[in-house]
Amino acid sequence: MTAPLRVALLGCGTVGSAVLRLLADQAGDLTARIGRPVEVAGVAVRRPDRHPDVPAELLTTDAHGLVTRPDVDLVVEVIGGTEPARSLLMAAFEAGKSVVSANKALLADEGGELHAAAAKAGVDLYYEAAVAGAIPLLRPLRESLAGDQLRRVVGIVNGTTNYILSRMAETGHGFTEALAEATELGYAEADPTADVDGFDAAAKAAILASLAFHTTVTAADVHREGISAVTSTDVARATEIGCTVKLLAICERVPGNEDGEGDSVAVRVHPAMIPTTHPLAAVGGAFNAVFVEAEAAGQLMFYGQGAGGEPTASAVLGDLVAVARNRVTGTAGPGVTTYAGLPARPIAETPTRYHVSLDVADRPGVLATVAQEFARHGVSIATVRQDGRGDAATLVIVTHSAPDAALSATVSALREMPAVRGVTSILRVEGLS
Amino acid sequence: MTAPLRVALLGCGTVGSAVLRLLADQAGDLTARIGRPVEVAGVAVRRPDRHPDVPAELLTTDAHGLVTRPDVDLVVEVIGGTEPARSLLMAAFEAGKSVVSANKALLADEGGELHAAAAKAGVDLYYEAAVAGAIPLLRPLRESLAGDQLRRVVGIVNGTTNYILSRMAETGHGFTEALAEATELGYAEADPTADVDGFDAAAKAAILASLAFHTTVTAADVHREGISAVTSTDVARATEIGCTVKLLAICERVPGNEDGEGDSVAVRVHPAMIPTTHPLAAVGGAFNAVFVEAEAAGQLMFYGQGAGGEPTASAVLGDLVAVARNRVTGTAGPGVTTYAGLPARPIAETPTRYHVSLDVADRPGVLATVAQEFARHGVSIATVRQDGRGDAATLVIVTHSAPDAALSATVSALREMPAVRGVTSILRVEGLS
Repeated sequence: MTAPLRVALLGCGTVGSAVLRLLADQAGDLTARIGRPVEVAGVAVRRPDRHPDVPAELLTTDAHGLVTRPDVDLVVEVIGGTEPARSLLMAAFEAGKSVVSANKALLADEGGELHAAAAKAGVDLYYEAAVAGAIPLLRPLRESLAGDQLRRVVGIVNGTTNYILSRMAETGHGFTEALAEATELGYAEADPTADVDGFDAAAKAAILASLAFHTTVTAADVHREGISAVTSTDVARATEIGCTVKLLAICERVPGNEDGEGDSVAVRVHPAMIPTTHPLAAVGGAFNAVFVEAEAAGQLMFYGQGAGGEPTASAVLGDLVAVARNRVTGTAGPGVTTYAGLPARPIAETPTRYHVSLDVADRPGVLATVAQEFARHGVSIATVRQDGRGDAATLVIVTHSAPDAALSATVSALREMPAVRGVTSILRVEGLS
Repeated sequence: MTAPLRVALLGCGTVGSAVLRLLADQAGDLTARIGRPVEVAGVAVRRPDRHPDVPAELLTTDAHGLVTRPDVDLVVEVIGGTEPARSLLMAAFEAGKSVVSANKALLADEGGELHAAAAKAGVDLYYEAAVAGAIPLLRPLRESLAGDQLRRVVGIVNGTTNYILSRMAETGHGFTEALAEATELGYAEADPTADVDGFDAAAKAAILASLAFHTTVTAADVHREGISAVTSTDVARATEIGCTVKLLAICERVPGNEDGEGDSVAVRVHPAMIPTTHPLAAVGGAFNAVFVEAEAAGQLMFYGQGAGGEPTASAVLGDLVAVARNRVTGTAGPGVTTYAGLPARPIAETPTRYHVSLDVADRPGVLATVAQEFARHGVSIATVRQDGRGDAATLVIVTHSAPDAALSATVSALREMPAVRGVTSILRVEGLS
């Protein structure tokens, strides 16, 4: 057997520990699959005393020294966050090491720069674990669908918010109670901002959109709304119209028009009602799923565990085998292309559909006035349901697709109408035919 | 721009025509993704006069001459069947051409030999389209999950039989009527043997098992039962116990035991009842889905269109981009490893679970006698339901897992018992906890 490939592990939390465990447990299989053994050269951590399970001689606090060491071939980065991860990856590329990363925030913000540095050095940058944990998703987008045209990628890519929304639907509780329960059970972190405000999903959406549309999309291009404003009324209204509420990451290619405007890319994260018959509706709890629509392939769905040490480590190791094989054959895998360079479409100009529930006065002419307001903003109504109860009535309206700004302007105008006593629920609707 | 990569297309039926259409429609994108343009060098067909849409100068009946032509870089084979496809692929490898194939029968029977020839020539052999059409499945198994240990792959991989079984459940019709309907609507071929007798699914199962378990598995190693013996009673009984009937391709790694027997691989295709809550139960009509269980990744599911010209062509083109990129960089992708060399486990020794429905005499002691027969064969009963109706009763039994031979011997013995008036339904059960 030839000399082993040596791996530097940066970070040793839940995912890093699982990577070490799998590397040891599957040493024989990995050797057979790669063609050379894989060996851990070192593990960079902040506090070596907190890692009694890792052999002391492997631990170091000098991450930069580790990634540039001549006896290191490959770098696995599971620190997370932008710095020092970014500098460490750049140093690794400069030193000619291939990198496997699980760092969604970094890839979403600096993916372009990192890919360029990897390409310049002739090494690999793989990051399957950054989006939807164990689900093989980035490789299918980068490779399996490389001969097709993607139209849309819609995913449930955050387990915490999916758990909270599932519990709200099951219990009738509001967001605050459901979040408290999730925190107690360990499904939400002590500071849940990254999850509930959609930052985590937005980073993943940026990565998915970049690969799907061969265009550089960063987290700043993603319109982002979290779930903290979702009420128990929203969830109840969804049930009434045969829908369920999910936090969706939506990446769309919006076709150009006859005025010469070219195609653009609309990427957004927000809660939405989807029909209970939609394949994504059944994805409950901490699971993730991503629905892909391509020109020739049609509809595809990928489903699995989106987080957790072992599932994420599985994705890291899959990438590690790939970059190790490339190292053995002296090559690098296909890079990421951004040739399409499509502009990001602002949310205001992105076509969406709204569900709106109103409390209105139950007297002649109210429906006509409300309908007129939609028409005035160029918004076409798909369905309307009116339930009278004494002198008041509930009006539930689902619109056709219209620019988001027109929908939002309509709702603002409705709030000012004397006949409208209250707007009780507004949520976008996705997946209706 | 550098010189184009030239492709020889073997076969020009539904899939081949779609490949030509996509190559033309997406020429610009493919060039950007590959780094060089792709050009069709020739199209080998049996009857050139039947392809008026293909430029006459591209058509040839000399497939062998085409694949060995010096101006051809890559070969796409969509002829199907074993010969002449096998000889053409071997000739292509010898001439140093990489191959993309959609040929499940050939890969299932001769995969080992073909991979060896491709490896020897230092070229690629990719065949994503051979299993589950457009669904990215082989690349995830070969690459994304290369750092994990697979336990099980269970799939609905034949659209025709899935359509027939779906219709039987919806209409209450028997197999013969449902097949006639499928034939009329074009979902079944004039000679439906390959589909309804499970040959198509068995070839796909062999390919999946080979990749999942790093072991050579051929179609001859696959236990195969089709759906022609599935009755409307079977379908009705399934509904009664909260199940639905599907034709499943099941690839399992069976752990060894304490007596020193090592791990083995059990691969089988047969109809089975699965709970309606199982993710595969909702896969209706002509769709395909494959459920994967891995040690670290946990449960994954892949869903999409399993057949049709455009979806299959999408998979062919994804592979074509991959082998073309490898050609541009002067390398070959990861080969297929068969180092594990696990033995195939005969169906008789494979643990399965049965559902058995019996018509019995409704008198004291019958249940005891029946239960004793299961015990005598070492088969443990999971659930039993007895419904009396006058002097007769229906007994519905679901067993725990036991070697298939023991289950089958139990059923044979039951048929001989005086108290058993008839065995009205026997089907294996999968996916129960």
